[in-house]
Amino acid sequence: MPELSTALVVGAGFIGTHVAQALAERGVQARVMTRSPLDDERVARLAGAELVIADASVRPALTSAAAGVDHVFFCAGGLMPAESNLDPAADVSLALPPVLNMLETLRGHPGPGLTFVSSGGTVYGPPERVPVAEDHPTEPLTSYGIMKLAAEKYVLMYERLYDLHARVLRCANVYGPYQRAARGQGFIAAVLDRVRTGRPVVVYGDGLNVRDFVYAPDVARVMADLATVRDGPRVLNVGSGRGVSLRDVLAAVAKVTGIEPELDRHPDRGFDVRENVLDVTALRSLVDAPSTSLEEGIRATWASVYRGVTA
Amino acid sequence: MPELSTALVVGAGFIGTHVAQALAERGVQARVMTRSPLDDERVARLAGAELVIADASVRPALTSAAAGVDHVFFCAGGLMPAESNLDPAADVSLALPPVLNMLETLRGHPGPGLTFVSSGGTVYGPPERVPVAEDHPTEPLTSYGIMKLAAEKYVLMYERLYDLHARVLRCANVYGPYQRAARGQGFIAAVLDRVRTGRPVVVYGDGLNVRDFVYAPDVARVMADLATVRDGPRVLNVGSGRGVSLRDVLAAVAKVTGIEPELDRHPDRGFDVRENVLDVTALRSLVDAPSTSLEEGIRATWASVYRGVTA
Repeated sequence: MPELSTALVVGAGFIGTHVAQALAERGVQARVMTRSPLDDERVARLAGAELVIADASVRPALTSAAAGVDHVFFCAGGLMPAESNLDPAADVSLALPPVLNMLETLRGHPGPGLTFVSSGGTVYGPPERVPVAEDHPTEPLTSYGIMKLAAEKYVLMYERLYDLHARVLRCANVYGPYQRAARGQGFIAAVLDRVRTGRPVVVYGDGLNVRDFVYAPDVARVMADLATVRDGPRVLNVGSGRGVSLRDVLAAVAKVTGIEPELDRHPDRGFDVRENVLDVTALRSLVDAPSTSLEEGIRATWASVYRGVTA
Repeated sequence: MPELSTALVVGAGFIGTHVAQALAERGVQARVMTRSPLDDERVARLAGAELVIADASVRPALTSAAAGVDHVFFCAGGLMPAESNLDPAADVSLALPPVLNMLETLRGHPGPGLTFVSSGGTVYGPPERVPVAEDHPTEPLTSYGIMKLAAEKYVLMYERLYDLHARVLRCANVYGPYQRAARGQGFIAAVLDRVRTGRPVVVYGDGLNVRDFVYAPDVARVMADLATVRDGPRVLNVGSGRGVSLRDVLAAVAKVTGIEPELDRHPDRGFDVRENVLDVTALRSLVDAPSTSLEEGIRATWASVYRGVTA
């Protein structure tokens, strides 16, 4: 079982922040690498991790940040799924260079394990069967999903050719504190933001699209747990394994906040799949799978959003 | 059945040239787009096609070249498979922009069908079973293969979201006249070049790796035939469906040329898969599959290589 006493987290966004917290909770000394300086509140969220402000697509910066760590958690991304289709060329130039730089860095300095955060919500495309297992065909309908898939293939190629110890985690629709509604991250973040600011919630389609919402602190804990497990498949789904419709989310939000969300209905966007629920059988065979209930997770997220307002 | 009276061929390389010839044979008025000016001999090979010297990653150039054509054959690539792994970042920046530009161009001016030339020799990676059908897992071991796969996914995404009529052809190891040994294209081209110049043939591994060699004029004919067929799967293997070892190739070359190739043995490169033979059942259900025998094809290729020397 690999030791996990020091780690590098690439990306101080939504998921990277939760990973830093999960690592701090288990006493792992973490270093967090992010391109832009953070304000004090965001630094505080990193729970004592060493902060490195540098671009992950620059080789020397990454080499020095990765020096001596037991594990690298790669949590940096390109554009958001919806905006990626507006400019696929920009998405390509943003999404892949940091991943390739990371892989070349680890190739030159082998040792640390690698966890690559991929997207179970986009790489599969329209499911032929639900729940979606890891061997399901991958036919993404967003540039975001295509680039995640290409990045996965590079990770697996480097693993095979250059003895890298890597795992790809295809995360479902992750939600929780720190998710930024303004950047278009996540339906739950958007709903809570709209409820907080008294604006109507934008819903594409009939509201019956089904998603696998998984609570970010659960995902971060799973990531930290898996980093100490060498066995098992190289590609793993990480989700709740439960399907919830957008209407179910709206009902849960109403219950938690006491506010009935107003709706702003739009036609289906074409690239939104009808139903996406991940099969987490393989994950369960290795570690404790995410278990926070939707209501519980929304309650904690709302508390965080609400604190944000009153702070 | 879609009409095919005018066509744009993007790329005047090995495959693009054969496609131009196949189109000329059936009276299709072709336009060939290539980045760099061609010498007279290479222009002559295009069999009367209109030549457009322009970069396919520049929107206005492509828009004007594609105007009014019935079909676009996309035969441009990035780096060669082996060299792509030496610099994946360069491969990414070369391989995808022209494809994305093509797709955005066709999205804005719908009408023409699209044939995208992909690589059955690299997108699948190590086969779990042989022959390899189109639904086989895709785990490329070269950046070249990963970029072909990503490009395929973009083609299929645009088809699904924007009503593009597109087909992806996963071609096996294509060989034939005009293949350039100097650029590392193809084992047969390399062998014939070495035999012609009296140098030893570089062989990686034990020479028992098996490939599906398919004759370029056969592939070009299949591409022209398929452009008039709307039905059938979006992704099709194009190969001979027969497996041939590198040693079999060497024996056939000895027989055709009367020269026993001298060998320069090197260890396996890691990314060379053991056996790759494509399942062409789906292709056969739509058009006549490639049928030129290996000896026949090598004979015609040798005649062309030999003419090149004496010209």
